[in-house]
Amino acid sequence: MKYGIVAFPSKKLQDLANTYRKRYDPHYAKITPHMTLKDAFDADEMQIEEISQKLSEIAKRFSPLTIHASRISSFFPTTNAIYFRVEPTPQLTKIHKEIQEQLQIGKPKHVFVPHITIAQKLSDAEHDDIFGQLRMIGVNEQETIDRIHLLYQLEDGSWTTYETFRLSGAE
Amino acid sequence: MKYGIVAFPSKKLQDLANTYRKRYDPHYAKITPHMTLKDAFDADEMQIEEISQKLSEIAKRFSPLTIHASRISSFFPTTNAIYFRVEPTPQLTKIHKEIQEQLQIGKPKHVFVPHITIAQKLSDAEHDDIFGQLRMIGVNEQETIDRIHLLYQLEDGSWTTYETFRLSGAE
Repeated sequence: MKYGIVAFPSKKLQDLANTYRKRYDPHYAKITPHMTLKDAFDADEMQIEEISQKLSEIAKRFSPLTIHASRISSFFPTTNAIYFRVEPTPQLTKIHKEIQEQLQIGKPKHVFVPHITIAQKLSDAEHDDIFGQLRMIGVNEQETIDRIHLLYQLEDGSWTTYETFRLSGAE
Repeated sequence: MKYGIVAFPSKKLQDLANTYRKRYDPHYAKITPHMTLKDAFDADEMQIEEISQKLSEIAKRFSPLTIHASRISSFFPTTNAIYFRVEPTPQLTKIHKEIQEQLQIGKPKHVFVPHITIAQKLSDAEHDDIFGQLRMIGVNEQETIDRIHLLYQLEDGSWTTYETFRLSGAE
């Protein structure tokens, strides 16, 4: 089964992201807006119990994530994905590193760039057009996220929450 | 904000439900297949903390839910929704009753009929046609669900998990 680890921002920020996603992101219906902490990985039922346990321990050490969605950026030319850039902080870098090191579930596909995707799978022309518009609109939202989610993927590509973990520590 | 309480069946049963939902349920993209324990209700941030706490206490008392999706039924003529009927059990009746009584979040809209919706908002003619076909195919799945979920709804109608609760008791 495929699993992933994400942090869902506030309803307000999810609603804002969805105003773009419903037009520009074919994954719109598969998952609500999120910040990925660990890309999709495979695990069986035995492994996921251990992963869940370790994630619980990590969550108990970290305090709620302070995030600042500061502008609209693009991964072009790597991909044509457009996203709310979330300012990197030592806290975000550290929780990402802990998840990677403790869970041992494969190396990350990319360098960790905290973000909330709002558009993807666009043609180059669409990307240039839409990115030009969205960059001007921008985004500026600050908030705290007090929990992280372990999700699993169904055959149709949609994601269901397996478990939530409250961030209840001090780091 | 609107909240709801559900139990998600196994990936296998969700995948099966989605084979029908993707064709016959306009809510297909808003939430993955689920058994509703409490219909949508309003709560503010203060209230939801208390509700979450009470739900946690209920979850600690109940053991994983044993369910048997035994046949395909319809709520016609009340609504045109078609669903996997989940056999009522004393355990399901009791957890539903506890949620109602402990959380004090409004009376249920309907008598509790445990089910997983696979088709809704059909015209009468579509309903008759599709129900006739699906009833013949039927369903027969038994499993246990070891957690329940408190969800909240975004403006576009989609649902995000707020918190999961493991059923870790004996009832």
